[in-house]
Order: sequence, then C-alpha cells, then structure tokens
Amino acid sequence: MIAEILSVGTELLLGQITNTDAQYIARELSVFGINQYYQATVGDNMGRFKACLDQAWQRSDIVITTGGLGPTMDDLTKEGVAEYLGLPLEEHAESRQRLESFFASLGRTMTPNNLKQVQFPVGARILRNDHGTAPGAIVEKDGKAIIILPGPPNELLPMFETGVKPYLMERSGEEIHSRVLRFYGIGESALEDRLQDLIKAQQNPTIAPYAGYGEVTLRLTAKVQSGENAMAMLDDVEKQVVGRVGEFLYGYDDDSLASVVVQTMTQQGQTLSVAESCTGGMIADRLISVPGASAVFLGGYVCYHNDAKMRDLGVSGQTIVQYGAVSEQCAREMAEGVRKRTGSDYGLAVTGIAGPDGGTAEKPVGLVYIALASPQGTKVRETHQTRDRQRIRMMSAMTAIDMVRMALK
Amino acid sequence: MIAEILSVGTELLLGQITNTDAQYIARELSVFGINQYYQATVGDNMGRFKACLDQAWQRSDIVITTGGLGPTMDDLTKEGVAEYLGLPLEEHAESRQRLESFFASLGRTMTPNNLKQVQFPVGARILRNDHGTAPGAIVEKDGKAIIILPGPPNELLPMFETGVKPYLMERSGEEIHSRVLRFYGIGESALEDRLQDLIKAQQNPTIAPYAGYGEVTLRLTAKVQSGENAMAMLDDVEKQVVGRVGEFLYGYDDDSLASVVVQTMTQQGQTLSVAESCTGGMIADRLISVPGASAVFLGGYVCYHNDAKMRDLGVSGQTIVQYGAVSEQCAREMAEGVRKRTGSDYGLAVTGIAGPDGGTAEKPVGLVYIALASPQGTKVRETHQTRDRQRIRMMSAMTAIDMVRMALK
Repeated sequence: MIAEILSVGTELLLGQITNTDAQYIARELSVFGINQYYQATVGDNMGRFKACLDQAWQRSDIVITTGGLGPTMDDLTKEGVAEYLGLPLEEHAESRQRLESFFASLGRTMTPNNLKQVQFPVGARILRNDHGTAPGAIVEKDGKAIIILPGPPNELLPMFETGVKPYLMERSGEEIHSRVLRFYGIGESALEDRLQDLIKAQQNPTIAPYAGYGEVTLRLTAKVQSGENAMAMLDDVEKQVVGRVGEFLYGYDDDSLASVVVQTMTQQGQTLSVAESCTGGMIADRLISVPGASAVFLGGYVCYHNDAKMRDLGVSGQTIVQYGAVSEQCAREMAEGVRKRTGSDYGLAVTGIAGPDGGTAEKPVGLVYIALASPQGTKVRETHQTRDRQRIRMMSAMTAIDMVRMALK
Repeated sequence: MIAEILSVGTELLLGQITNTDAQYIARELSVFGINQYYQATVGDNMGRFKACLDQAWQRSDIVITTGGLGPTMDDLTKEGVAEYLGLPLEEHAESRQRLESFFASLGRTMTPNNLKQVQFPVGARILRNDHGTAPGAIVEKDGKAIIILPGPPNELLPMFETGVKPYLMERSGEEIHSRVLRFYGIGESALEDRLQDLIKAQQNPTIAPYAGYGEVTLRLTAKVQSGENAMAMLDDVEKQVVGRVGEFLYGYDDDSLASVVVQTMTQQGQTLSVAESCTGGMIADRLISVPGASAVFLGGYVCYHNDAKMRDLGVSGQTIVQYGAVSEQCAREMAEGVRKRTGSDYGLAVTGIAGPDGGTAEKPVGLVYIALASPQGTKVRETHQTRDRQRIRMMSAMTAIDMVRMALK
C-alpha cells in the first residue's frame, strides 16, 4: 500500500509554521508498513491544490491531506476533494448539532460561514474533532481513499489516533501496538551496535531507535491480526533487548528521568533536596514539573553565588578559597549541607563552569561536579560536558537526576 | 521570481526528522518577496528525485534542494542534478584541500568515498560549509538556478546566510535587512488590531507578526537597492509601531525577558533574588541561562514545601494557617523574606496552584500570586493562568520576570 501526504496552507509556503503534521503522519504510516515515496505542500489555491491532489491520487492508494478545513473562503480542501472526485457536498447533521452546541456553550452566535465546516463530500465517513470546530473525513472511491485532516496539531494528532489508525487497521486487517523503551547513559550508536543483529533481523515487532536530547529511545511495534496477542510479542522482544542493554533502561512511553525519580521516591517514602550552582534551578524545575512532586521534594537552593553556598548550605569559606567553588570538595559540602538543612533522605548538588566565560586551563568550561549525599554516604562525580552554556547545563541536570535514580535501585 | 523547495531524504518520508529546513528557507524566500507555490519531499531514489526535480524546474525559476550531499551511496542530489542538466561532475580543488585538512586535524584517515562530497556539476558556484564536510553549490542554466544545500540545519542555516542570501540579493539587485521587535503583555490579535492600517498599507519595509510562547514578535524587513539606507527605513517603521504599542516592546532580535532583566540590572548595578513555589526553579533557570547572570542573581529558593517557606524565607506559620500558602499575604512575605535573606535590591516570589490536583472552588488550579519586594515597597499581583501544569508554570515565570523588568523602568 502506498500513501502520500499533501499539506495544504499558504502559511507553510511562507514558512510561518513548521510542518510537524507531516512528520507525525509519516512516522505513523511507516509504523504501519505503508510506503511513502513523495510528500507535497501547496497553498490555499484551488487550481494548484487540485493539480497536486490529482498527482497524489494517480501515484498512491491513500492520500492524506492536512489543513484547509476552517470556516473562511481560503479553506478549500473539502471543496477541492469533492470537485476532483465528482461528489456533491452535503451537511452532516450530527456535526452541525455539535457545532451549534459548541457556540451555545460559549454564549456566542454562530456566524453562517461556520456551517462550511460541517459540509462533506457525499458518502464520507466523518472523523469527529474533539479539540476544534472542523471535523475530518475519509472519502473512498475506486478502492482508494482520501483522508482529510485539520491542520492544527492539537486537533490532528488525537483525530489520527482515534479515527485514522482504526481505519488503517481495518483496511489492512491488522492491529498495531507500540511500546517505547527509554534509555539513559548510552549513546545511539552504541545502543544500535549492541542490538545490531536484532535490528537487522527485525520483522515483527519492528525495533526503531531514535536519539533524543541526552537519551535514546527504542520504539517496538507489533503488527498482529485482530485477536492475536501483541503484548506477548512486545514482551518477548523487550526481554531480548533488556538482556543486552537492560542496565540503561530507565522507563517506558511518557516517562522522564525526573518522573521516574519522583515516582520511585514516592513509593519508597524517600525525600530529596537540591543545591544547584551552574544548573541554576533546572533540576528543581524538572522535578517539580512532575505532578505530585511535593511528596518528595523538600527544598531547592539556587546558590550560583558563593555567599549563598556558604549562607544556605554551610559550605566553608576555607573550601572555596582552597579548592574553588567548582571542586569535588565544594560539591560534597553542598550536597551534605542541603541534606542536613532540609532533613531530606537525599541531597543532590551540582557545581560547574557553564561558560561561555570563566574557564581556565585547569578548570575548563564544561567541567561539572555532581554530588549525592544519602544515608549510605556521599558520592561525587566529575563530569565533562561540551558545546554551549545551555547544553552543558541540561546535560548536567540529566546526569544529576540519573545519579539519584541509580542510587534508588 | 518563483522558487520551489525540494527536500531530499528517506528519513523525512519515514518521519524520523522534522523538516525545519523547508520552513526556514520558505520564510527567508518570502522575506525576499520570492513566490512559492509548491514544496516537495522525495526519498533517496534517483528516478523519483529526477522526476521531482524536473517538475520543480519546469514550474519555477529557482529550485532549492536540501539533503543528499554526504559521502554514502544513498546521497545522490548532486549526481541527479548533474544528470538532469547534462553536466559532468568535476572535483573542486579548494574543497578537496579543506576536506583533507579536516581529516588531518582529527588525525583520521580519509576514506575514498568522502571525495564524493567535493565533486560538483561543471561550472557550479561552490558554497563553503563551515560546519560540516559537504559544501553546497549553485548551478545556473537557461537563466534558472538550482541551489544545492546540505540537510543538517546547523550546516544549512549558516550556508544560506553567507552564501545564498548574497546570491539572491545579487540576482535581484536588492539587499534585505530585518529587525525583530519583541512584545510582552499584548496578544497577537490585539497587536494586529492596533497596527491594522500599518500592516495593510505595508510594502517596504514589510511588517510580519508572529505569536510565540507568551509573547508576540514583529519582523520588519526592508528591501533596498544596494547603497540605500535600510536602517533608516527600519527606524522609521519602528517609530510608527512604537507610537502605537511601545509600552509592550521589551526587546529586539535574540533578546528574552530574562536577558533584558539581567542586562538592565547589570547596567544599573541592581541585584535580585527569587523565591519560587509553583514555578519551582523555572525563573532561576531562565535568569541563569543568561551569560553573566552571576553579577545580578544573589540566590534562589525553591520552597515548594511549606516548611521551606518558613525556614528559608521567614514566612510566618500564622500566615500559612490563616491565609494559606497560595495567598497574597504569603507571596508578600516570601518576596520580602528572600530580599532580606540575600540582601538583594529586589526580591521576587511566586506561589500558586499549578495542578492538576490541589485546586478548590475558592482557589482554583491556575491561581498564582506574584510578589516583588524592592526599596520602593512590595507589590503583589493576583494572576489566573489556564490549561496544563507546565503552561501555568511557564506563563507565571514569564509574568514574574516581566514584573521585574517593568519595575526597573
């Protein structure tokens, strides 16, 4: 089966928005094993839209359009599809009711142009839009299909998930189930290297590695006939993967290092406090972004300034003079100091040189000390990060949070 | 003049990467007033690439390709262009020298396949790549041009800036100069509304509004004949814009609210400390992301926990019992407490309910108090943010930083 994505919108041709819709759909289609040879983008122009639609229809089985479903004159996707396939437009009663209720709930009068959004080519299957006013549609003809989706990603993604995936499964007679495994502490090429034979031999489930910021993920995808046990197939591949690189696996699907730490600590009844110099609040921010962090997080100190290190964490002036604020000794005193001050089980501290200035031959930009104080004593790691200030800070924050995760094991 | 972007790479068809190159180039072309009617994406396949190239060449004056310039068999853009235009490939001596020096500097032996990267269609103008091994090229024929660019954005953007823009200026006999004005505290539609007649009447310079996260920007772009004074034209439009919405203008180009606050405080010799409950380190993080923040930032406290509010900031238990931790009174005591503790000129504090849990009818999720203590006294603002936890925290952090900016005026 061959599919083609046709993105509609002058704002794409003007570069006003990034076409993340096309990436999302392309990835989902490739997971289904549906081939894609071309993608096209066209503006809000009926003649050019129909020319692109014709080309896509000729060379594929499924055409997926994005955008051009709104209430204005510029929105022409459904009109173009109807003209191209020679189908009249008709109003979809249920969609009209939903639209009217929506306006009523806002206490606003619906202008007549809004009704354009509930007109569809005759015979279309309607895809409900739970996040906007314009429903999508699937129009079939001659064994081929045009899938019409709205442009805004927050409307398109859920519609694809709940409306298009089931259609593709139904059409192919197959179900697709995915699981994302998340790894930290191993690079993409090293991970691929250790799994090379598995990745090469993969057929079903498939194994797809992606490199994220400071982490690597593997997406396992099983394609099964309806009724078959996809979970068992995913479990089996996961077991093989874990046999090779299990020590780096930290979570699944939407997990993050911070969410895993907060959840594990909550389960274990442990608490944490943080003292940050160069990361400057980034670690606290990541932990507190996890709902329920209040059960775990007893306090954070952004002690970028040496006075703050001494005043709030009890770092000795002697240590700063003798070893410097960026030193193993200072990191240790910060971690032990913050643990003592807040009475938390764990005290995490980071001090380093984020640049662009402040580096020396002996202590270059990117040198970062991370310390973790716990009932088992204090550990300090010397790390070296590269590139710009922001990356040095982010990689340090991740490394620090991971140090807590490892200590909880 | 009509241009078409042709993106080359199977990774785009598989959805493994977002096509940010196309957006960037499209925006730059539209700034030049160069029309674009279509964009196309194709995989690493010679037949299909040449078919797309033919279509693009037929319907435009300039074709810009991205990707497919590397050393592997899959990389076929230059080969395809050469075949399509009937031009042989030849080695570019200077590029070969640069490539050999690059490998020598790494102490690595250059494998022969790398030489593919320094072969170009005869007569091409070479675009040096200062951030990677594959140069780009401009090939002209019959008054049209194909501009060949590498795929990685960190290579493409600087090459476009230093190699393609001058070419486009030369071709059009025009120069392009842009200035970005950044606004906070006004929405996109309100800004457009106040500038409606200016935007409608715009010709040169052009005025293009964009909505960012919590802010709005206007990009002013002047197109001039070489030698004309673009800066004066930009100054003139800026003056008109400032006359309407100047009170919301906070900076230019790469400025952020945090960078403006750090720079202004540095100039004025002022200092700041921060006490964060629901924003949990995000304000400190943003301030410290600005190089040189150490001159200004005396300390940050992430006092998500009530104990921390009392211990570190001197908030009274009575206040928390009587008014609650999310209250005007608590925000005030936090701001005054952190100012006193660190001895800073300004003390900034945030306390609120970020959700998803913890809201009540009286104090719903999204209620956030922001306080700023200064030598002029303490001001507290009650704000209401919407949607999810992360957005509530981010909007609160921006509002808080902006409160400092306004106080410094």
